[in-house]
Amino acid sequence: MARRAVDVPALVESARAGSPRAVARLISLVEDAHPALREVMAALAQHTGRARVVGLTGSPGVGKSTTTTALVSAFRARGARVGVLAVDPSSPFSGGALLGDRVRMQDHALDPEVYIRSMASRGHLGGLSWSTPQAIRVLDAAGCDVVLVETVGVGQSEVEVAGLADTSVVLLAPGMGDGIQAAKAGILEIGDVFVVNKADREGADATVRDLRHMISLGDRTEPGLWRPPVVKTVASTRTGTDEVMAALDKHHAHLEASGDLRRRRERRAADEVESIALASLRSRFGDVAGDVRLGALAARVVDGELDPYAAADALVDELTA
Amino acid sequence: MARRAVDVPALVESARAGSPRAVARLISLVEDAHPALREVMAALAQHTGRARVVGLTGSPGVGKSTTTTALVSAFRARGARVGVLAVDPSSPFSGGALLGDRVRMQDHALDPEVYIRSMASRGHLGGLSWSTPQAIRVLDAAGCDVVLVETVGVGQSEVEVAGLADTSVVLLAPGMGDGIQAAKAGILEIGDVFVVNKADREGADATVRDLRHMISLGDRTEPGLWRPPVVKTVASTRTGTDEVMAALDKHHAHLEASGDLRRRRERRAADEVESIALASLRSRFGDVAGDVRLGALAARVVDGELDPYAAADALVDELTA
Repeated sequence: MARRAVDVPALVESARAGSPRAVARLISLVEDAHPALREVMAALAQHTGRARVVGLTGSPGVGKSTTTTALVSAFRARGARVGVLAVDPSSPFSGGALLGDRVRMQDHALDPEVYIRSMASRGHLGGLSWSTPQAIRVLDAAGCDVVLVETVGVGQSEVEVAGLADTSVVLLAPGMGDGIQAAKAGILEIGDVFVVNKADREGADATVRDLRHMISLGDRTEPGLWRPPVVKTVASTRTGTDEVMAALDKHHAHLEASGDLRRRRERRAADEVESIALASLRSRFGDVAGDVRLGALAARVVDGELDPYAAADALVDELTA
Repeated sequence: MARRAVDVPALVESARAGSPRAVARLISLVEDAHPALREVMAALAQHTGRARVVGLTGSPGVGKSTTTTALVSAFRARGARVGVLAVDPSSPFSGGALLGDRVRMQDHALDPEVYIRSMASRGHLGGLSWSTPQAIRVLDAAGCDVVLVETVGVGQSEVEVAGLADTSVVLLAPGMGDGIQAAKAGILEIGDVFVVNKADREGADATVRDLRHMISLGDRTEPGLWRPPVVKTVASTRTGTDEVMAALDKHHAHLEASGDLRRRRERRAADEVESIALASLRSRFGDVAGDVRLGALAARVVDGELDPYAAADALVDELTA
């Protein structure tokens, strides 16, 4: 593939100096799984580890973008530099452009201390576990104090994105059986802070009660463990934003005091390293010499001479001998 | 983990003799990713390779179960032994029980020559690419002449399941923009036979035209290449089932004559071997000795001493040195 040549040192230098164009270009390299990423990540490494990473997730329509916008304003009021990644795991199209809900974030579009970026992640080798942490790394190295990762989508992808954040915010809106829905989707376990948005609507208090009850049934009620708060908001009028910020700060302090911040970040890095290593090993399967190559092994499986486990053993043995 | 001991030779013997209980138990071992699977697959290998594998996929509500039931009847009328796997990639719950649409398949529930099984696949290491081919292997070795794999769900999972079949049937129902929807979902490329079900509804002819047009725009119009037919059915009254069967037979004959059957099966086996090998390699990451173990590498990434690529290189080097 012919690719545009990339002057990595210059690009990293510009991004660190605060150029939105350079940051955008680096994130595009991440989206494209560009060969220069290796050099980019090597250059960024020593400048990472400062940013707080806050994930926001929830079903479509609960007000994720509005909430993100409110949080951006609140962090900006403190003088923080803020990065926003809007990740759509269901979209095969890359972002860059501000579409749909993104448009509302134009409140901050002209603020040089705010980077906003929509990102597709599906179709990447390694999916979310690869591209999103790399984009976070770019924003971190570019001097963002906070990176907000907003996930569009439901189910497994929410859980994956939550694994990438220091603090995961789960958004819900009033409605029947939300607590049960959350439990089924596995998001009760991953939320550090729960926000019931659109709290001016009927049923908000029931949803809050429902959630608190579900949380109390969980395993997280031991002394010293974090008990996720449930905060009511009306993000469109910024009602409750201060309470959300307070909950975020409290959780961050808990993470630091307990050592969980370090543990979460190490786990995140381990996942990232592992997916890169697996992709690297996978690329070697086709290259293994002799009659134990993957294609030849597959033929013997089709013939019933080998079962898939024995074939996999042969492949691994050849690779690791 | 304490697990019930499994007498694999006896179980495989019973399954091959036609015991539905033994077949069900073997598929449960697949769902559970039971340690005995390795021995099971080794015992089954020499008895596999006979079954025709037909995948059925389509959005919820197009009539997959009804179509599957009609096809089971048609294959039974020829005296074939039939296996049905209803795979739900979005469900974390295992099947076994016949739920919802499955109930309709009770037409065949008492027929000893028909095995029907609902299967969850999400959450498995390796997902569909692992558990579904293993279940197909069980049914194949148990003497099924045909295995119908019905996928509940949309999007990526459809494409994955299609990769597991010899012949992929894509179902649609009349409705606006179905051809476009199909193109977006990537299922135009994977369908070998297209069925427009509920063809007594308004818009059926338009959907057929739409589909034929989209197919004609594809790359598959060269001489000698398979041109997917579009068949109209009303599965609930068995209207059009003979035409679907004729299309399936024609495609199977094409696969055999062109060598594509062998190629598809080798590719399927290669995917299966590869995912088992990757899982095996992954399990070793934690065991690598010395200071380059995954955890230690992750800590250095968090400290900014290493970037994820360099850490992955160190991990792979240690493993393959």
